[in-house]
Amino acid sequence: MSLHAVILAGGSGTRFWPLSRAKKPKQFLALATGRPLIAETFLRVEPLSSSARTWVVCGKDHAAAVRAALPNLPEPHLVVEPVARNTAPAIGLACVHALREDPDATLMVLPSDHHIARPDAFRDALQTAARACQGGDLLTLGIKPARPETGYGYLRRGAEKSPGVFAVEAFVEKPDAATAQQYVRDPAYAWNAGIFVFRADAMLDALRRHLPAVHAGLTAAGDFAALPSISIDYGVMEPESKGSGRIALVPGDFGWSDVGSFAALPEVRQLDARGNALSGDTLAIDCDGCVVLAEAGRLVAAVGLEGVCVIDAGDAVLVVPRDRAQDVRAVVDALKASGRFERL
Amino acid sequence: MSLHAVILAGGSGTRFWPLSRAKKPKQFLALATGRPLIAETFLRVEPLSSSARTWVVCGKDHAAAVRAALPNLPEPHLVVEPVARNTAPAIGLACVHALREDPDATLMVLPSDHHIARPDAFRDALQTAARACQGGDLLTLGIKPARPETGYGYLRRGAEKSPGVFAVEAFVEKPDAATAQQYVRDPAYAWNAGIFVFRADAMLDALRRHLPAVHAGLTAAGDFAALPSISIDYGVMEPESKGSGRIALVPGDFGWSDVGSFAALPEVRQLDARGNALSGDTLAIDCDGCVVLAEAGRLVAAVGLEGVCVIDAGDAVLVVPRDRAQDVRAVVDALKASGRFERL
Repeated sequence: MSLHAVILAGGSGTRFWPLSRAKKPKQFLALATGRPLIAETFLRVEPLSSSARTWVVCGKDHAAAVRAALPNLPEPHLVVEPVARNTAPAIGLACVHALREDPDATLMVLPSDHHIARPDAFRDALQTAARACQGGDLLTLGIKPARPETGYGYLRRGAEKSPGVFAVEAFVEKPDAATAQQYVRDPAYAWNAGIFVFRADAMLDALRRHLPAVHAGLTAAGDFAALPSISIDYGVMEPESKGSGRIALVPGDFGWSDVGSFAALPEVRQLDARGNALSGDTLAIDCDGCVVLAEAGRLVAAVGLEGVCVIDAGDAVLVVPRDRAQDVRAVVDALKASGRFERL
Repeated sequence: MSLHAVILAGGSGTRFWPLSRAKKPKQFLALATGRPLIAETFLRVEPLSSSARTWVVCGKDHAAAVRAALPNLPEPHLVVEPVARNTAPAIGLACVHALREDPDATLMVLPSDHHIARPDAFRDALQTAARACQGGDLLTLGIKPARPETGYGYLRRGAEKSPGVFAVEAFVEKPDAATAQQYVRDPAYAWNAGIFVFRADAMLDALRRHLPAVHAGLTAAGDFAALPSISIDYGVMEPESKGSGRIALVPGDFGWSDVGSFAALPEVRQLDARGNALSGDTLAIDCDGCVVLAEAGRLVAAVGLEGVCVIDAGDAVLVVPRDRAQDVRAVVDALKASGRFERL
């Protein structure tokens, strides 16, 4: 079994503005520890795959940032997409590259911008999945839900195929609040975190069957930009799960967080006695549950605040309640609308 | 009648940190308009006294800042106190200086750090007071209360001595909330704003009678630092009001504000449609009743906030709810305690 890590670094979200910028999206930010999320992702799986068998897929705008964050990544393993085409083409591209070096390659596909509190348990789950996929199944990790989250898709598991490995019975859309309350209490449901383990040849075969246009574009000298933009979940995993029985999951509970917004930082950071996540030159007086990031060397003082994020990124400061952290998008939209690209 | 303006600029408060600093207290900040409060004070009374008859009393740490803010102030009219000794010695010093130039001087004593929305009405009240003080009375302006304020002292007026001029019956301590509710409905009560009008010779005479040590120190070649620290209200006005009948007030309603903290800025500034006081490069999205000051040229974005002050002063950022604005003091105390004088 020859285990490769494939880190997907094509994301370009705006929910961490003003820390994140077009040239420096979330995966390059040190949101959880002193290292960028992508560097933590790299180091987390190095014990399984070694850096020599690690790959990164990213857009051309971010290739330099990847090199800077991952000095040990072999240069030919930086796979640059000419244009972003969602996860199915990106994963297909990684399969093609890995198979050229290693016809026996098993890939662990990892988002570059998540945090995992218990990496040992995470690696155990990956290894279970890697063993289980050798017969050609496509594996995913199913995260034990920590709360009745309505923002994620869920996986519903069926029969146990081998110890700790279950058939995936269905991919479930984001639920409403009442349904999410049921899922969180039902061990059959798990969060779909976009972490996959499979043999590269098996995935290419599945792409050939479900997304022939993608498969053809990848294997012939096709035009990547002409490929459809489609996710691996929607394009391969979900249709394959209907009938073939070849989609399986390994349940896991390893302190996963997708670090979805500033509001999530208290989940993944050291907190003070009153639940504040502070970094840099901060002074929090009589504050509770706040996020105060002074990334610019300036003093940031917060007094009497509850559940507020204060982010000083140097050329811009953001203040937003934690429960409105998703609305950072509105700032980015307003800056775009007024042509202030120097702040984006 | 020879009218002089005396601007008291000895204040050194901390409630506008991080905008205000030890070297640049509140009176030197442009809190209400584009000009520092002290410059607005100077210009507001210039039509009555002219700059040639304007005086400023300040501490030695702030003499340079006064000169910079008031280029038209005659250099000999900048009266520098060796040490701060509260308002009685400061006013006495101004009397001595003014009488040397003008034995007939009538002084209008003005705090340097207040805002007045209707300067015409203010000047009318000062002129009424100036006429009324020519027989030797000590006049003060009594501000019509705008709300049941518990943070100010009040004046209770008695009989009308001449049209628009009333005897002061009592100086009333800061009331509790229930008492303040009565005062705000009773035309006999006015806020004591520390604005005084009197003949300089009459005030010196009152100082001689009530504060002989202050009087002696001012008129002989005394040591200013040896003078007691005492306010003019407590040392002269209040004792004089008991019996002599020489303390009088002119009621006024001219949009006075002492600009007591960041929370007061919406009273004295232009507001947007949702009641936000914004200045500099700000972006307020779905905010109400906020104060957002971007004084450092950086973008400050506020999203979904209600009644929060966000102050970017360049080397420090402060975020505090409006109803906690007084607690800025705690930040200053914490900085002092940790020896961070570069931020004070």
